[in-house]
Amino acid sequence: MGTTQLESVPEPKYWHLKTVLGEALDSEFTVGEILPNERDLAARFGVARATLRQALEQLELEGRLQRRRGVGTTVAPPRMGVEVGPAQNAWPGETDDWQPADCVQTAPPAAVAKLLGCGTQEPVHAVRRSRVSGGQPVAAELLYVPAASVPELSAIETPGGPARARAVLRELGRLGLEGEDRAVELGSARADDAKQLDRLPGAPVLLVTTRYFAQGRTAAVSVATYRADTCRLTFGDSGDVQIDHGQERRAS
Amino acid sequence: MGTTQLESVPEPKYWHLKTVLGEALDSEFTVGEILPNERDLAARFGVARATLRQALEQLELEGRLQRRRGVGTTVAPPRMGVEVGPAQNAWPGETDDWQPADCVQTAPPAAVAKLLGCGTQEPVHAVRRSRVSGGQPVAAELLYVPAASVPELSAIETPGGPARARAVLRELGRLGLEGEDRAVELGSARADDAKQLDRLPGAPVLLVTTRYFAQGRTAAVSVATYRADTCRLTFGDSGDVQIDHGQERRAS
Repeated sequence: MGTTQLESVPEPKYWHLKTVLGEALDSEFTVGEILPNERDLAARFGVARATLRQALEQLELEGRLQRRRGVGTTVAPPRMGVEVGPAQNAWPGETDDWQPADCVQTAPPAAVAKLLGCGTQEPVHAVRRSRVSGGQPVAAELLYVPAASVPELSAIETPGGPARARAVLRELGRLGLEGEDRAVELGSARADDAKQLDRLPGAPVLLVTTRYFAQGRTAAVSVATYRADTCRLTFGDSGDVQIDHGQERRAS
Repeated sequence: MGTTQLESVPEPKYWHLKTVLGEALDSEFTVGEILPNERDLAARFGVARATLRQALEQLELEGRLQRRRGVGTTVAPPRMGVEVGPAQNAWPGETDDWQPADCVQTAPPAAVAKLLGCGTQEPVHAVRRSRVSGGQPVAAELLYVPAASVPELSAIETPGGPARARAVLRELGRLGLEGEDRAVELGSARADDAKQLDRLPGAPVLLVTTRYFAQGRTAAVSVATYRADTCRLTFGDSGDVQIDHGQERRAS
């Protein structure tokens, strides 16, 4: 790894350092390799540790480094392409690879109630699902289904758990799906989602909110939390677009 | 604002503090209001400043706070819904609200060359565009168009600037668009994009990579950098899904 001195560069030091470090990752490190410790790295590049940390944070944001407790900072594998927007509209559970984990009756959060057009006191079924890709947890979802969307459900005697979750999904599938839309935004992992995703609470995540329309109204709302460090969300038929924002990465 | 002591809570302190602070934002603050300084806030909630900073960072990730140089930390307005996935496939410039700013001939970054299926030495047209919504810059784009996609262009004598950019878009529009796909991932703002977006280099951004297909191959690749603090990317007809991940926000 080089020892470029950064004193004379007009742009923010951490920014230039990030570029230099990124090039070193490309040329000298392999995926999974542990980086030298912060003190050594800072000394080698002739920067303060605060500057080094900023650069490492940048590279973490870009998915090039992973910080893992008890391991240290490692070179991250390329992000996984995870299909989010299916080519065809489909109900949750019909064609996707999510695993239903649980289902409870609950009062919807205010923002979800607004999307569903119901009151916050009106109980909804909250189906919790998880998605695993390449052996790793990539997303956690809460799917909110108003009782009115699955009127036949009360007749089914499954009190909770995956069986109940599957029953809600099955009943939902009986409705004619008229359309769906989505929004993606940056968020921080809630404690329960973080645990499911093997992250610390507050880690950056990509929140995907999907509305499912049937019978002229919003029949269900999904709030899915994707790991932002390992996932690239894909939309459309062709699936796997990979870009490193101008940098080539060595995935050896 | 309350003075809840956080000593006895088992979850990470910053996490609980984030929740308490979030509730205070809902009930006691209005959009645009400046928060008290860190020392006062830390004292009020009985936490160390490091803990307070972690909680503020979380709320910033969630788009509830904005840190603005020379102003301080303010309560953020709700994120803007910005349409990214059009209902119908369309070439850039056909139906969108981007402003062409410039166009240069350049060698494509390695990752873009890979998506285009061309070599890194093959010159491409790089069209720079910007997108403004509600009077604010929300995104900066580089659209890479191989010379082979716009063979008639060389005959047009516009050396650069917006006119050249528009000429490339017009020529691109002559091709029959066969489809497009997209990927969304977390990134950090490059220096030039950051400037255009009124952010510091390295700020968290949402990178949207779009491939446009024509004549059986990838005819153009767009890499768009969206502000993650103010934008919620929407996909589908209905446009504006708004969710606060379980928290209602007062947009007064």
